[in-house]
Amino acid sequence: MSKRVINFYAGPAGLPLPALERAQKELVDFAGTGMSVMEISHRAKEYDVVHEEALALTRELMNIPNNYKILFLQGGAHLSFGMIPLNLLRGGRKADYIVTGNWAEKAYKEAKLVAGDNVRIAGSTKEQKFSCLPKASEITIHPDSTFVHLTSNNTVEGTQWQNFPETGGIPYVADMSSDIMWRPFDVTPFGLIYAGAQKNLGPSGVTVVIIREDMLEQCQAQDLPSYLRFKIHAEKNSLYNTPPYSVFTFYVMS
Amino acid sequence: MSKRVINFYAGPAGLPLPALERAQKELVDFAGTGMSVMEISHRAKEYDVVHEEALALTRELMNIPNNYKILFLQGGAHLSFGMIPLNLLRGGRKADYIVTGNWAEKAYKEAKLVAGDNVRIAGSTKEQKFSCLPKASEITIHPDSTFVHLTSNNTVEGTQWQNFPETGGIPYVADMSSDIMWRPFDVTPFGLIYAGAQKNLGPSGVTVVIIREDMLEQCQAQDLPSYLRFKIHAEKNSLYNTPPYSVFTFYVMS
Repeated sequence: MSKRVINFYAGPAGLPLPALERAQKELVDFAGTGMSVMEISHRAKEYDVVHEEALALTRELMNIPNNYKILFLQGGAHLSFGMIPLNLLRGGRKADYIVTGNWAEKAYKEAKLVAGDNVRIAGSTKEQKFSCLPKASEITIHPDSTFVHLTSNNTVEGTQWQNFPETGGIPYVADMSSDIMWRPFDVTPFGLIYAGAQKNLGPSGVTVVIIREDMLEQCQAQDLPSYLRFKIHAEKNSLYNTPPYSVFTFYVMS
Repeated sequence: MSKRVINFYAGPAGLPLPALERAQKELVDFAGTGMSVMEISHRAKEYDVVHEEALALTRELMNIPNNYKILFLQGGAHLSFGMIPLNLLRGGRKADYIVTGNWAEKAYKEAKLVAGDNVRIAGSTKEQKFSCLPKASEITIHPDSTFVHLTSNNTVEGTQWQNFPETGGIPYVADMSSDIMWRPFDVTPFGLIYAGAQKNLGPSGVTVVIIREDMLEQCQAQDLPSYLRFKIHAEKNSLYNTPPYSVFTFYVMS
């Protein structure tokens, strides 16, 4: 190849050259099948290896306990913004959102569309133009919340949580698109973690959702279209429908 | 490369070797950028060329008039099964579904979840185990329908419409995942055409939605999460959020 440039985009991010070269090498003939991985059925054993290893590596790298399901979905964090309240805030259930930047505000606004006044702001630094995180004294968690939503890092403003705020045991739901796998952290206070792959994990087109089983049990959404239900994806091990080809490329990045 | 096999999967389908080889060649350094197309921002001019050419080629190959928008979305036909009634069947609006196979029945069931009894069966060959299409005399279109849904080809049973049924001018909404671009046809009676790319167009991860402007105007969904609204994707020219990497690979297949 001719040259490599250094990528300072907010996302999609640069990818490791050895992983790109492996993806390139295997693009026309994957694992000796005589087919591209793009051509292999997602019900075939060759794809199954890719899928299971991508799941296992995610679990290993983030030290995710067995009471969490790892899902590979589509639609980016934007679709998750909607799926989270659609699944978790039915029947008058409530949530707190901490608004610390552009992405946190998007998540809040999308949840408002679905759940209206049951979505509350527990803290915000909008008046400071998101130049900082709120202090502990500036956060008010409502004890009747099903979850507390936060954005672990806002790429636009750079407001990143170093230590996550105290919630009195209410689980976090977190958009970690721009800092997932950036450092070790304890996933156990998180009820749900979601991340579009293209910022920190691999190519665009796959969204990783990590959901704790007790949160999954709280998903009440039997009148929602099936694709929008976390429970169906969990039951089908993310093979409810054809997974995006990006899972392969994400896998070779691992 | 060592060998090429012939692919008889129902999907994902085989892809043309010259296109795979081009994707392979460009995987590490796209258009002289020193970056993989996977690493290039979807707001960068290099990606813009990919995006616009994929749109233009789709329009050219299918002879799509200018009063249709072409969208590149995610989630496969399965997410479209839900998005269609969520956008088009608000406020008591009704639709007819013609059930001619496994895929047609899935589309019908997903629409029922959203719109209940406002979704009607206008014809079905379920009693014949989907071994045939209904005759014209076996189809009853309700004149108050916003659209008539059909599946142009059911891969499981092979029930394919050679000539589309008479609807008295009510627009078709059609899942064409398994025969889109297979033959020339007149798109003008169609209000909306959708297709997961992986059967007939390219790799999995992108869903093509072709929607007529009068149908787009009928989308009443301002309380839906943004990702689920066709109007937002149309206004943003399918760049509302990061498009799936599969758009690139679909583009090189063109």
